[in-house]
Amino acid sequence: MGMTMTQKILAAHAGLDEVRAGQLIEADLDLVLGNDITSPVAIKEMEKFNKETIFNKDKIALVMDHFAPNKDIKSAENCKCCRDFAARHEISNYFDVGEMGIEHALLPEKGLVVAGDAVIGADSHTCTYGALGAFSTGVGSTDMAAGMVTGKAWFKVPSAIKFELIGKPNKWVSGKDVILHIIGMIGVDGALYKSMEFTGDGIKNLTMDDRFTICNMAIEAGGKNGIIPVDELAIQYMKDHSKRDFKIFEADEDAEYEKVYTIDLGKLEPTISFPHLPENTRTIGTFDEVKVDQAVIGSCTNGRLDDMRIAAAVLKGRKVAKNVRCIVIPATQEIYLQSMREGLLEIFIEAGAIVSTPTCGPCLGGYMGILAKGERCISTTNRNFVGRMGHVESEVYLASPAVAAASAVTGHISAPEELGL
Amino acid sequence: MGMTMTQKILAAHAGLDEVRAGQLIEADLDLVLGNDITSPVAIKEMEKFNKETIFNKDKIALVMDHFAPNKDIKSAENCKCCRDFAARHEISNYFDVGEMGIEHALLPEKGLVVAGDAVIGADSHTCTYGALGAFSTGVGSTDMAAGMVTGKAWFKVPSAIKFELIGKPNKWVSGKDVILHIIGMIGVDGALYKSMEFTGDGIKNLTMDDRFTICNMAIEAGGKNGIIPVDELAIQYMKDHSKRDFKIFEADEDAEYEKVYTIDLGKLEPTISFPHLPENTRTIGTFDEVKVDQAVIGSCTNGRLDDMRIAAAVLKGRKVAKNVRCIVIPATQEIYLQSMREGLLEIFIEAGAIVSTPTCGPCLGGYMGILAKGERCISTTNRNFVGRMGHVESEVYLASPAVAAASAVTGHISAPEELGL
Repeated sequence: MGMTMTQKILAAHAGLDEVRAGQLIEADLDLVLGNDITSPVAIKEMEKFNKETIFNKDKIALVMDHFAPNKDIKSAENCKCCRDFAARHEISNYFDVGEMGIEHALLPEKGLVVAGDAVIGADSHTCTYGALGAFSTGVGSTDMAAGMVTGKAWFKVPSAIKFELIGKPNKWVSGKDVILHIIGMIGVDGALYKSMEFTGDGIKNLTMDDRFTICNMAIEAGGKNGIIPVDELAIQYMKDHSKRDFKIFEADEDAEYEKVYTIDLGKLEPTISFPHLPENTRTIGTFDEVKVDQAVIGSCTNGRLDDMRIAAAVLKGRKVAKNVRCIVIPATQEIYLQSMREGLLEIFIEAGAIVSTPTCGPCLGGYMGILAKGERCISTTNRNFVGRMGHVESEVYLASPAVAAASAVTGHISAPEELGL
Repeated sequence: MGMTMTQKILAAHAGLDEVRAGQLIEADLDLVLGNDITSPVAIKEMEKFNKETIFNKDKIALVMDHFAPNKDIKSAENCKCCRDFAARHEISNYFDVGEMGIEHALLPEKGLVVAGDAVIGADSHTCTYGALGAFSTGVGSTDMAAGMVTGKAWFKVPSAIKFELIGKPNKWVSGKDVILHIIGMIGVDGALYKSMEFTGDGIKNLTMDDRFTICNMAIEAGGKNGIIPVDELAIQYMKDHSKRDFKIFEADEDAEYEKVYTIDLGKLEPTISFPHLPENTRTIGTFDEVKVDQAVIGSCTNGRLDDMRIAAAVLKGRKVAKNVRCIVIPATQEIYLQSMREGLLEIFIEAGAIVSTPTCGPCLGGYMGILAKGERCISTTNRNFVGRMGHVESEVYLASPAVAAASAVTGHISAPEELGL
């Protein structure tokens, strides 16, 4: 019996020829990631155990993104804790206000993750990097602490589900619709502790940004990780962004999958997750009018350049509806700059949207767009749990940038087609 | 005995031929202003007294700027309270995310204040509009509530101090240095409940944005208001921004001033207010190195287009020092857009600064750059009280955009000359 992509990467990092689903292994790590919420906890764990050394100053990344620029004194203290720690240990990859971005958009952009890597991050959406053919997964702050000290982590080798993507998505259907469709199909625990391996001819019709979005939300189906075979597009992306060598792992032909789903991308429609779970998906046209008070376009899920371009294509020459606040958050400084150079930010401002500096912001109820009681937000973020973006009686609807932008214009949840696009 | 500019405006709004310092009058108001912190308090006051009518839906301005986009659930509820109130009363000048800006930059830009107006605002820096030859002053939320219902406010007619400005400021010396110099000279209670009337030949050498900055900080010397005679520049500004008629009031030749100061603008140096009072001023070159952790360029004091241009002139082709977070906050959407079109925002991002959507943000310790214990910020804002921008053991140094930008580059408080500019 062969191994899946994920199993092969884990075997290589554990120094083993073969691993099996369920097996406990210890793997060498190529990168340990933390942010301004989780890293201070990890740093305090290290102090508690008097661990004052780190395994490799070039293989730790600390990204100040959740509440930076600091929203309050507590977040300021948390960032300071990370800043001091990074300086003390001469950590190369410390990202603060000015060079920062949302971690999961930033690390691939900076070339810090490449194919074949094993990465842990004290943030659940660390699974994003599967788009580059890496194994990456979210861990708690204690595991992050152990990872920073030892450069290793324990894993139970996951079993896998294969999603064979075929066909080509229609206009205005993007990676977000693909992953929302899948989560709607299998549920928020449909891939619990499993690898979600996305394969098939349809992959070639997905941009890198689509792929990051898809892998990013693997955790929303409970997945241990999401992963996509490396093709020319992914190789080009790594060549453009990284100086590191990469290693391509392919699933064996006889790899074992618990289930195999085939999804025709050409049949997908713009998909929205209704409150209060990502699995509550409906497609445009199958529900009554849902008015919105706010539209958020950004986050580690959908704050990349493609997302900005799509939102701008919808908003260009149009106006955000009265009574709707439209908040656009490019995920990194580089994306912000490029969006400005392409004229996208000007389109947003002229449409009556606002553009935030890169931050996770409202996604997790941090700041930059928290909801009052009874308010509704259409959002390109990744979670719509009760109270996720503010008041417990507020509602979040997850969608693609195309749908979020169109909804900002109409004032209710809409696909771009409603605008004649 | 004649009247001052301020007294003439107040007399006209009280329907009196003459008023005297110390006299109690009731004046008709041209505008009543509130923001997202103060308006909800005023609205609740109205409800408490069962006052459900407003005096004029076109003469009330509600500006969501302090914590918008909302930083937390409480600020979201506050904005919602204002939004619902504005909708219920069909208030024309309600400004929310997308069309917003910091109130004191926004109202002149939108043409809502012109020469000869009497304006109250539930925000201490309402005195800004004196730059247009209006009487404007900050009030509490209860006065705002009464103003919204009756269109009137009681005042004790203020006495006045005259500041005769002569000469022309040197390069890199701006309105901020003028007002900091004055506050340093007379102290934070130096003009307590008095009008600060800025006159003299030097006025013509000050841009409108300089003048807004100067009047904005009158309150920091305890002034009831700051005011500047209307000249061609101010008239052109009003013609460019407003459709309203304006009325020019001039002080009588024999108007009474408690004191007259003459200030030669050509002799001013870049001026910095050290912690923890705006009166603790020192000029560049008279103090030892002061390292900074953060530089803030924005606020109702210095977030206007001139300020952006000056900061960009300093930051162009340079890099923000490592370990310094440089946060630029254009004061309104219009300023943001114009700054983008002129390439200023690109300069900021390339320098490693970040650009925030318009908000008061860190100025009052709101969000977007709160300080941790022991941190220092050089800031173009207006107050450096203990804990103003975060932790009680943090420090704020007030300065011009030129000094803030230069300090961001060097990492310590510097004038642009230190960069060879």
